[in-house]
Amino acid sequence: MIIDDLYAKVKQTSPLCTGLDLRESYIPADIAAKDIGIDEKLFLTAQMIIDATAEFSACYKVQIACYEALGLTGLKAYSRILKYLRDNGHIVIADIKRGDITSTAEEYAKGHFSGDFEADIVTLNPYMGIDAISPYFPYFKDKNKGAFVLVKTSNKSSEDFQEIDDSKGEKIYIDVLEALKNWGVDFLGNSGYSAMGAVVGVNFLHQIPKIRQVADGRVFMLVPGFGAQGAKAEDIAALIGQEQGGVVNVSRGIIAAHVGKDGDAKTIIHDKAKSMAEELLSCLK
Amino acid sequence: MIIDDLYAKVKQTSPLCTGLDLRESYIPADIAAKDIGIDEKLFLTAQMIIDATAEFSACYKVQIACYEALGLTGLKAYSRILKYLRDNGHIVIADIKRGDITSTAEEYAKGHFSGDFEADIVTLNPYMGIDAISPYFPYFKDKNKGAFVLVKTSNKSSEDFQEIDDSKGEKIYIDVLEALKNWGVDFLGNSGYSAMGAVVGVNFLHQIPKIRQVADGRVFMLVPGFGAQGAKAEDIAALIGQEQGGVVNVSRGIIAAHVGKDGDAKTIIHDKAKSMAEELLSCLK
Repeated sequence: MIIDDLYAKVKQTSPLCTGLDLRESYIPADIAAKDIGIDEKLFLTAQMIIDATAEFSACYKVQIACYEALGLTGLKAYSRILKYLRDNGHIVIADIKRGDITSTAEEYAKGHFSGDFEADIVTLNPYMGIDAISPYFPYFKDKNKGAFVLVKTSNKSSEDFQEIDDSKGEKIYIDVLEALKNWGVDFLGNSGYSAMGAVVGVNFLHQIPKIRQVADGRVFMLVPGFGAQGAKAEDIAALIGQEQGGVVNVSRGIIAAHVGKDGDAKTIIHDKAKSMAEELLSCLK
Repeated sequence: MIIDDLYAKVKQTSPLCTGLDLRESYIPADIAAKDIGIDEKLFLTAQMIIDATAEFSACYKVQIACYEALGLTGLKAYSRILKYLRDNGHIVIADIKRGDITSTAEEYAKGHFSGDFEADIVTLNPYMGIDAISPYFPYFKDKNKGAFVLVKTSNKSSEDFQEIDDSKGEKIYIDVLEALKNWGVDFLGNSGYSAMGAVVGVNFLHQIPKIRQVADGRVFMLVPGFGAQGAKAEDIAALIGQEQGGVVNVSRGIIAAHVGKDGDAKTIIHDKAKSMAEELLSCLK
């Protein structure tokens, strides 16, 4: 199970997941000056970042929106970045947050678990229920793939619907977590975690112990919002615990660390990834 | 406002929205036999379908998943199909169901409201709250764009989360509809409808009058599930009403009508679109 590979990587390196939400403004001057297309520039920038952060990163999360924004050219870069990551033995989370049903979800699963956009793990949106999740299941066992399903997101307005109280006084996101823990039992790895994990942001989260209780050591977490979005390391530590049952995404905090600064971009990014990984690890002791 | 253009088109033609969820198996034999790439074959098939259905279709919904499944080649076809539709004066709904927040949602908005993937209207997922919707707002007024937000989907497992009762005994999807009606007041067109509409499937819907009451004549509907998915025309009529405050998507029912049949694909598809548009119109009298 991919989740065992990811868990092993966390133990080897740190729970840091470096987020490749690349923007044109993050391209260093030396790459920007080259007489090549924007897709090539994005790829070279990503390659530099990956090489600079590899020793501290358990995995990489690539935000497809940043590439979709640039149309076909952007997606060409996205495809090359994913291939470079996988060719170099890195675990790739495609942050696609797709959510559609049955035969349409099968198309998305095919698109993101094979071919040009092949990733190891995808993020999914649960609003449409299990019909939006189950079409990915065949890939979990047969192709060593996984998914993180949105449970509680790291934005302020996650409260709009995720925090509505149900008739039993439970938050909707707890209902979602409960459901996905149950759906995930068929995909438990040797680590005890399921190939179907959860996205849980701690920025506006008031129920960390409750989440841990419901997840019951089976739901691996992808925690966004550390760094630029302001999630606190101690909240993250409380959520994923000393057992390190999750990865913590940092995007801008690392990949834009060099922007507006003098000095070698790769060195600045390397040092920033190192210090963020160390900060996370020190909180988890 | 795009919604006024769409409403005018419904009155001119019918509430039929032809869904271009194109699969390789729908490519007619004469196109399949050509010595050209799969993107070209998909484009020619879409072009044939569009020309065959134009007089009955208020708009077209293009399901991006079917193209994403084929990677860069598929998205090349997607881009050409969107361009062909818009160049020929058709209103295009990009069925992308994206849902992400703030700066990431801005990237999606840029990607689907300009450039290679420019559409007139997109579908969006509300799970992350208004942060996942408001980044599209600037395009509504300034660029004549719109969105349909998922409220109640047409699949069985829409009940998993959308039908949870909140603490007031209201379904979650009613809370979502209420919120988006309120968010949409800044984008009301002359028709009285907002540029922000709702996706409402009737297949497993038990509260049609309630939906109409909450929508209050301001929320235009995109109704999936007619035809192959089995939604009943009379339920649809009860939902969108004699005022025709919505469009009704048919995909497979029309675009795969020729599969496994003798005769000219274009004629079969034309006749099927005509009969489905007539069926819808007769129920709305």
